[in-house]
Amino acid sequence: MLKKVAIFGVGLIGGSFALALTRAGRVDQIAGFGRSPEVLVRAQALGIIDTISASAEEAVRDADLVLIAAPVAQTGAILRAIAPHLQPGTVVTDAGSTKADVVAAARAALGDKIGQFIPGHPIAGREQNGPEAAIADLYSGKKVVLTTLPENSADDIDRVASAWQACGAQIHRLSAEDHDRVFAAVSHLPHLLSYALVDDIARKPHAELLFQYAASGFRDFTRIAGSSPEMWRDISLANQPALLGELDAYLDQLQGLRRMLVERDGAGLEAVYANAQQARHNWISAIEAAELQVKQGGD
Amino acid sequence: MLKKVAIFGVGLIGGSFALALTRAGRVDQIAGFGRSPEVLVRAQALGIIDTISASAEEAVRDADLVLIAAPVAQTGAILRAIAPHLQPGTVVTDAGSTKADVVAAARAALGDKIGQFIPGHPIAGREQNGPEAAIADLYSGKKVVLTTLPENSADDIDRVASAWQACGAQIHRLSAEDHDRVFAAVSHLPHLLSYALVDDIARKPHAELLFQYAASGFRDFTRIAGSSPEMWRDISLANQPALLGELDAYLDQLQGLRRMLVERDGAGLEAVYANAQQARHNWISAIEAAELQVKQGGD
Repeated sequence: MLKKVAIFGVGLIGGSFALALTRAGRVDQIAGFGRSPEVLVRAQALGIIDTISASAEEAVRDADLVLIAAPVAQTGAILRAIAPHLQPGTVVTDAGSTKADVVAAARAALGDKIGQFIPGHPIAGREQNGPEAAIADLYSGKKVVLTTLPENSADDIDRVASAWQACGAQIHRLSAEDHDRVFAAVSHLPHLLSYALVDDIARKPHAELLFQYAASGFRDFTRIAGSSPEMWRDISLANQPALLGELDAYLDQLQGLRRMLVERDGAGLEAVYANAQQARHNWISAIEAAELQVKQGGD
Repeated sequence: MLKKVAIFGVGLIGGSFALALTRAGRVDQIAGFGRSPEVLVRAQALGIIDTISASAEEAVRDADLVLIAAPVAQTGAILRAIAPHLQPGTVVTDAGSTKADVVAAARAALGDKIGQFIPGHPIAGREQNGPEAAIADLYSGKKVVLTTLPENSADDIDRVASAWQACGAQIHRLSAEDHDRVFAAVSHLPHLLSYALVDDIARKPHAELLFQYAASGFRDFTRIAGSSPEMWRDISLANQPALLGELDAYLDQLQGLRRMLVERDGAGLEAVYANAQQARHNWISAIEAAELQVKQGGD
């Protein structure tokens, strides 16, 4: 049982964590803190948080667990505000989409209290944002990746892992570097590619004609280009080294396909397309099998 | 009223055209022809076609309208088989995703009968294929682009347009060259990019780890990489000049984004992302407004 949980950033991610912990009966009091008093008042009215803290110091005082769920570019400033007030019994975690940069910021901000920080990344989201979008089910059956540090104690890791598990999530462990490489490939690069295509088309002189004939395939491909530009600017910069590596590999791949087009190499094109189709089919089958297992386990 | 319609290729596209025309009460007899006798028998059992033709000659004999809905690489061979038997009263159209190559093949195959060929492209599809996937509603509210030729008569164009309108489709007109440029940008390039990403990831040594963390954004972005590799090989080659042009523009765009990443130009990245998000938002709003109008018009 957690006596007090403090949440910095009570939007979709932090708010859903609060609702899920409350529903699981795992917490006595949830304190919220953030830049916007108005958002905090709405979160309190929605029953997401019990109290609004007047300062970072007040938020973390006597907290068992602190979740930083603000935009990732604010993580460093929040950690610096917390650092002087961090008591020995408090564990801090975060929900940022990138991890190497967060670990570096945490080391700089927390100094010899770094062992109290357990970096995390819940793989869940919705298209809406803000406290009104928060739902207790957001993490149900979803993955949470912890990129723990050598300085973390097993008990502290367990406190964070148990809280996420109480929200219905499955805990995975990766190094911060592996985490960032993985998400550069399967999330950050696709976002960049999708934004790039829509911007490319929108800037053409005949953009209006082009959009007129765009259909469902284009809609799916570009769905992630509807995401927050500020958030993805921050993620792109925060994970710049890994994202550049993935982008360069992808540019090589496109140059290879370009050569096949120029040479009218139908067999080469078909081999790439068929390998992709088969790999995607296998991936979807594996997801569906896992979902079925979760469902049957829950019956 | 059409006395006889002949359909070459009785799968999703040809079969749905047949079902919609029949439902609209616009045709006396539908004859089917294709490479696979087994598929023709299934289509007849499903009530899609009335008769199975023994040859291309028999299929087109006394037909008012011929639809070629076979894979696009077969269009030339079908037109050559039809050409010697094409009577003056018969109009031929097709459903291919590329048009300049089809027009060239038609000119070569039909010679001075070219005026009887009205090139077309219905913008509709489903994930399934074959006659079992055919539905009478496939073209309802969808666009059909006709890329008519100077040799076409107004009456012949009207016969093709009326048939598609009876299926519920809206007729649009573009030149073959404009058509191919438009679809290279909004359809063919996104397919190539999506295949390229999945193949790139699938070939990495840690592909299994990567797929394990791929989530809903990746699923949407790569949905079109589940499409038929043979079909998209053919489209890529058939529309090679326009596709290369779009690919090169996109490669320039990615090089620009790469420079912004290298220089950590957050404002530049955000400007591209924000322009894309806004353009996509405007596009979706326009689609939804048009859908609402169609719905209200139908009440």
